[in-house]
Amino acid sequence: MASLGDIGVSALINIVTAFAFLLAFALLRIQPINDRVYFPKWYIIGARTSPTHTANFVTKFVNLNFKTYLNFLDWMPQTMRMKEPELIEHAGLDSAAFLRIYVLGLRIFGPAAVVAFLVLIPVNVSGGVLFFLSKDLVISDIDKLSISNVQPKSPKFFAHILVMYLFTFWACYMLYKEYDVIASMRLNFLASKSRRAEQFTVLVRNVPHVPDSSVSDTVKCFFKKNHSTHYLCHQVYKSSLISSWPRPSTMRTNMQRAVRKRQKMQNYLDYNQLKFERHPNKRPTRKTGFLGLWGQKVDSIEYYQQRIKELDEKLTTEHQKILKDPKRIMSAAFVSFNSRWGAAVCAQTQQSKNPILWLTEWAPEPRDVYWKNLAIPFVSLSIRKLVISLAVFALVFFYIIPIAFVQSLANLEGLEKVVPFLRPVIEWSFVKSFLQGFLPGLALKIFLWLLPGILMTMSKIEGHVAFSVLERSTAAKYYFFMLVNVFLGSIVTGTAIQQLNSFLHQSPTQIPRTIGVSIPMKATFFITYIMVDGWAGMAGEILRLKPLIMFHLKNMVIVKTARDRQKAMNPKSIDFPEAIPSLQLYFLMGAVYAVVTPILLPFILIFFAFAYFVYRHQIINVYNQRYESAAAFWPHVHHRIVASLLISQLLLLGLLSTKKAANSTPLLAVLPILTVTFHKFCKNRFEPAFRKYPLEEAVEKDAQDEASEPETDMKSYLCEAYLHPVLRSIEEFELSELGLGVDKNRAHFSSQLEKEQENKGSPKMQHLEVVVGQHESAYTHHHKASAQNVDVTDH
Amino acid sequence: MASLGDIGVSALINIVTAFAFLLAFALLRIQPINDRVYFPKWYIIGARTSPTHTANFVTKFVNLNFKTYLNFLDWMPQTMRMKEPELIEHAGLDSAAFLRIYVLGLRIFGPAAVVAFLVLIPVNVSGGVLFFLSKDLVISDIDKLSISNVQPKSPKFFAHILVMYLFTFWACYMLYKEYDVIASMRLNFLASKSRRAEQFTVLVRNVPHVPDSSVSDTVKCFFKKNHSTHYLCHQVYKSSLISSWPRPSTMRTNMQRAVRKRQKMQNYLDYNQLKFERHPNKRPTRKTGFLGLWGQKVDSIEYYQQRIKELDEKLTTEHQKILKDPKRIMSAAFVSFNSRWGAAVCAQTQQSKNPILWLTEWAPEPRDVYWKNLAIPFVSLSIRKLVISLAVFALVFFYIIPIAFVQSLANLEGLEKVVPFLRPVIEWSFVKSFLQGFLPGLALKIFLWLLPGILMTMSKIEGHVAFSVLERSTAAKYYFFMLVNVFLGSIVTGTAIQQLNSFLHQSPTQIPRTIGVSIPMKATFFITYIMVDGWAGMAGEILRLKPLIMFHLKNMVIVKTARDRQKAMNPKSIDFPEAIPSLQLYFLMGAVYAVVTPILLPFILIFFAFAYFVYRHQIINVYNQRYESAAAFWPHVHHRIVASLLISQLLLLGLLSTKKAANSTPLLAVLPILTVTFHKFCKNRFEPAFRKYPLEEAVEKDAQDEASEPETDMKSYLCEAYLHPVLRSIEEFELSELGLGVDKNRAHFSSQLEKEQENKGSPKMQHLEVVVGQHESAYTHHHKASAQNVDVTDH
Repeated sequence: MASLGDIGVSALINIVTAFAFLLAFALLRIQPINDRVYFPKWYIIGARTSPTHTANFVTKFVNLNFKTYLNFLDWMPQTMRMKEPELIEHAGLDSAAFLRIYVLGLRIFGPAAVVAFLVLIPVNVSGGVLFFLSKDLVISDIDKLSISNVQPKSPKFFAHILVMYLFTFWACYMLYKEYDVIASMRLNFLASKSRRAEQFTVLVRNVPHVPDSSVSDTVKCFFKKNHSTHYLCHQVYKSSLISSWPRPSTMRTNMQRAVRKRQKMQNYLDYNQLKFERHPNKRPTRKTGFLGLWGQKVDSIEYYQQRIKELDEKLTTEHQKILKDPKRIMSAAFVSFNSRWGAAVCAQTQQSKNPILWLTEWAPEPRDVYWKNLAIPFVSLSIRKLVISLAVFALVFFYIIPIAFVQSLANLEGLEKVVPFLRPVIEWSFVKSFLQGFLPGLALKIFLWLLPGILMTMSKIEGHVAFSVLERSTAAKYYFFMLVNVFLGSIVTGTAIQQLNSFLHQSPTQIPRTIGVSIPMKATFFITYIMVDGWAGMAGEILRLKPLIMFHLKNMVIVKTARDRQKAMNPKSIDFPEAIPSLQLYFLMGAVYAVVTPILLPFILIFFAFAYFVYRHQIINVYNQRYESAAAFWPHVHHRIVASLLISQLLLLGLLSTKKAANSTPLLAVLPILTVTFHKFCKNRFEPAFRKYPLEEAVEKDAQDEASEPETDMKSYLCEAYLHPVLRSIEEFELSELGLGVDKNRAHFSSQLEKEQENKGSPKMQHLEVVVGQHESAYTHHHKASAQNVDVTDH
Repeated sequence: MASLGDIGVSALINIVTAFAFLLAFALLRIQPINDRVYFPKWYIIGARTSPTHTANFVTKFVNLNFKTYLNFLDWMPQTMRMKEPELIEHAGLDSAAFLRIYVLGLRIFGPAAVVAFLVLIPVNVSGGVLFFLSKDLVISDIDKLSISNVQPKSPKFFAHILVMYLFTFWACYMLYKEYDVIASMRLNFLASKSRRAEQFTVLVRNVPHVPDSSVSDTVKCFFKKNHSTHYLCHQVYKSSLISSWPRPSTMRTNMQRAVRKRQKMQNYLDYNQLKFERHPNKRPTRKTGFLGLWGQKVDSIEYYQQRIKELDEKLTTEHQKILKDPKRIMSAAFVSFNSRWGAAVCAQTQQSKNPILWLTEWAPEPRDVYWKNLAIPFVSLSIRKLVISLAVFALVFFYIIPIAFVQSLANLEGLEKVVPFLRPVIEWSFVKSFLQGFLPGLALKIFLWLLPGILMTMSKIEGHVAFSVLERSTAAKYYFFMLVNVFLGSIVTGTAIQQLNSFLHQSPTQIPRTIGVSIPMKATFFITYIMVDGWAGMAGEILRLKPLIMFHLKNMVIVKTARDRQKAMNPKSIDFPEAIPSLQLYFLMGAVYAVVTPILLPFILIFFAFAYFVYRHQIINVYNQRYESAAAFWPHVHHRIVASLLISQLLLLGLLSTKKAANSTPLLAVLPILTVTFHKFCKNRFEPAFRKYPLEEAVEKDAQDEASEPETDMKSYLCEAYLHPVLRSIEEFELSELGLGVDKNRAHFSSQLEKEQENKGSPKMQHLEVVVGQHESAYTHHHKASAQNVDVTDH
């Protein structure tokens, strides 16, 4: 076990690493050449266009203003300048709520640390000098401050139980307050948005097959009958636009391939036109052969224009084929209503006598829709859920088996057989020892690197219909993995499968004891974990080393047009499936060690504070969220923190029962019951705000809209809100072809809506729109409407 | 362990007992004097008025037609004459669905018994002759037919696993089919009913307190705003009408006391008027003193009329006091809509931004409402649920402690101290041995007799708002008690608390082994249990000995008027809280023993068949259901049978693992997973039919109503549908006072509705209506409307 000195050294190393990263970040971010890596968000919202406006060639790439180098931590106060409402406006509620998790951590563990330091550390230190521990546990200085230092049967355990009660009540109070705040923030956020498609639209799945009637007609007929005064229009979903599972997603349909190719050609055309503009006297040419290396020399602009025309014809043919093939229409539709009230009612009620037909739910945001999973039938969904939950269980507990197998293959002998010519190099002692240290861990490292992707694929197979739900589901799986393999796996030595086996053969009361008794001994391990994974990891996050390198590489090799540069920026978004579970592991550690080894708390507090600054900076300057779910992940965050509290209580119970504190332990047994009750109450009290949409709210917003913009043509807007991305890109090409025309429908909508769409649309799409122009012809509108079987008749 | 011969003797005794009961029943039921005991249902629906129409005095009481004595089992075919649709019409869907549970039992276990007899018994018998069991188990003939007779490690266990798979699949298939049938029966039943108040009404709880606005105005304003086109009217619930918890229910409010007294006076008045009619020359008199024993002699009719007038005045005063006291209006209301669609939407959606305010749910039938629990706030409900679930847990596992304590007091020494003068009698050896055998069990027997009442009280404290829900909740608690204390308690010797303790200290894989290994040994015990509790118990049920005696006693002592005789009939209804859990214990026994000791199945099959006949007879001729929940209990029945399947699989797993059948046991582990999946699928597929009301259905029914009776005045009907029973009785007194007037509102409603209400109303209320006349004056209507704050303004 590490002594306080060892911890100090480790802390020093990590602090130095973190500061080195921060210094590198401070130097790199003020170089104009890196501006698009460290401030992409501002480019996307259009607040920046070019890093510098000076004519000096050098200052275009390197910052020569040395004053700015001095205060290299000034980004921290800078991030705090943006207030929360402004932040929500700037980056969305998801990001703001994500930041609040860190603040919640500070609020829960800050006072807890103070109380624990004032009460528990004196109590622990004043006890016997660990005389009884010398037998089975190694004494460390950290242990002297922990509960291990208290003699068995001591009445001092009442102090620990008291602090545990105080901590639980305080944590529950903060959780309750936070849930309340987030729920009302969500409602306000939803209310503050002007008319958006998802507020009026319901996703209908499992539309039954009616003989002699198309799916579109069936949907229209059903909703006209059952929601007569509220139904407006619908869009039927087509399967052929995308490749369907179980074909891997890399195999694309004809349509998608053609669209991709067309985008590429358009890019080349833009590039050549730009070239021509710069040098009007030299018309760009290329050769027609492979990669333009040989063959006939032609005019590039004409060549690409010709190719685009061909592709457009191909797309139109494909498009017509889809329209004529009734088999390709799947049993899902987006149904729009003329009021929020109508949509809220439809989303929350049961439609059909058969409860697995006509399943309705709120439509996700158009850009949040995961199109591939829309048409999975109900029975298939049930089976998928079963299979995936079994697979996750197997993955968590048995992942070590295939890895051990691969490890047994990937040893030096194996390597020498595969690459015999490298034998001399391998035999060289330095390389040999390096490989021997490196190879066994390689399979595990590759697996851990692949893990989020594997879990995401599992979630996709499960059949969720929105990216936000997919990410939440992946986060849940990832948390489960971390809990078992990182937290419990570190405390109880042995692999998860060994643990599972031993737990199955132990009594349920024995398990918390087994884990509880080894908790105090692992405190130093977790302190090191916090410093490496938390402190240094966060500093690495803000440095963005990988995107930095990738951006400059791309800039050198691929980038030809503004569109390419926009693409190369790759701002990414908050990685919810990884960030939230990792973060919640800190809550778990904090809750478990708050009473056992309070010295761990300051390390966690520093992590929370530092990570808060880092993520605040990244959210303001870098990340561009792909979708906005209005903090829909909060119930998961809340549940898992409550679960952490429960785990900590059970483990303390187990620990105390090994301390023979028979007269104080029963007092603690009430706490889990109270915690579960708190959880249930919160679930009833707040969760509906994240699942349902209150009619009161809907009526209010409808009335406001009615008052402010009574003349809006909702129908034509809603009818094309849920276009499949492929169809949308076809549409955009057609726009560029026709070049002009006024979008009558959008013109009717509020300017704010336009702005929001621009701000929040994906950067790619956005830029495309700027390039090709934002106009739309009557022809295109008609084309689109027929493509999605929009109901354009009045009713 | 009992041999086959012992079982035969036991069977003979029980068959003889059952036949004796049946014979007694056959003799008693054809006596005209018992007609009201064995055929009360027909009196209630008005199909019978008097047992005989002959003038002969003797035949009025005793049946002298000896032919009818010969075929004493002819009631069995008689019960089958009534087909299911007719039965639903006659007794309601609850009763019909209850009978289907028995048929389901026959369908599941019939084929299972055939397969088990053809496959498993030969397999079991052909094995070694229990040589290995002689050490630790007593050999019995029954055991030779059971799985105990198979040698450890035998490949024969594959046969058992195969049969378990077949049985589970067959049971799931039958369960699925049955759920499907019941769900569609429920929808048809709800659809076939004409307009009823509960189809248009939603119960709203947790109405928030708005300053300067009465609850009634708040409700009106909220629903006018949020359900503008559908809201019709509402009735606010008043707390002062009933005593509220925690005051015990025996303490009544002034109002209730007055109403009770008035009913009594009315009864005396009726009796004296009847007396006067029979002997017009002698006017009945009574004395004014205590119990009419002394004091001034007055004319009875005038005396009672005077008293009734006084009470009416008192009631009116009380009534006015309630109306004027705004504090007495509680935060619950029945809100009615002008269409089923509107009510369905309101019941299924979230109303308020704060999800614990304005909670809506379908209103129960008016006669199903449990008024006392309407106004419990949300937070209180959460706490009550927690407290009661802890209490139920304690009751199930620790009930034995107070009983053992009482038993230790109630011994002979204690008795001698309390009643020293009885010492000579107690010391007499015969009495002493009787008491010694009797006293220790007395406390337990009293507890078991009180148990359903205790559980019902617990459910009431939990805060359910309908009698049907209360009974379902009680049934769930009772089943839990039976499962732990009867089923597990019989298999594993020792009290529940000892079991709990040992289970807590065993590994989770050890528990099914511990139980599984002793299952085959307990087969004879359960066979005896089935014969005593099932066969003889059912025969006792049809005999109705207690109601028979009570009726004749009451007839001799209390009965003065027709109303009293109606009351004395006491047909009761199916005792769901006891009948369903007991019945499901048989499903559990069948599932567990189907593979282990198949010889048990025929006993269960006989029970199901016999109980089916008995209950069919009782439902047709005796029971009068207090409410109709349209088979709302079915999901519970289904879940518990699935749980039985799961328990049986786990126990078989445990049993096989002790048999060292290592190569066959893992095959069985898949079965619980499949069963859980089946359960989840059924829950999604069918449960919404029992919780929600599909809009499709609502629209259809609304359209039908519109077509058939477009002119109905819904509002005036719905405005007074949910009157508190006390107010309703006050109203009825006023009717009798005023004597005439035409009920305009009801006249508008279909005659079928009237008929249904008459058929299904409680017999007491019904008779009262017949006595006091079914008319209602305009005055009363106004009175009533103001009493319940009905919104009578148009909007």
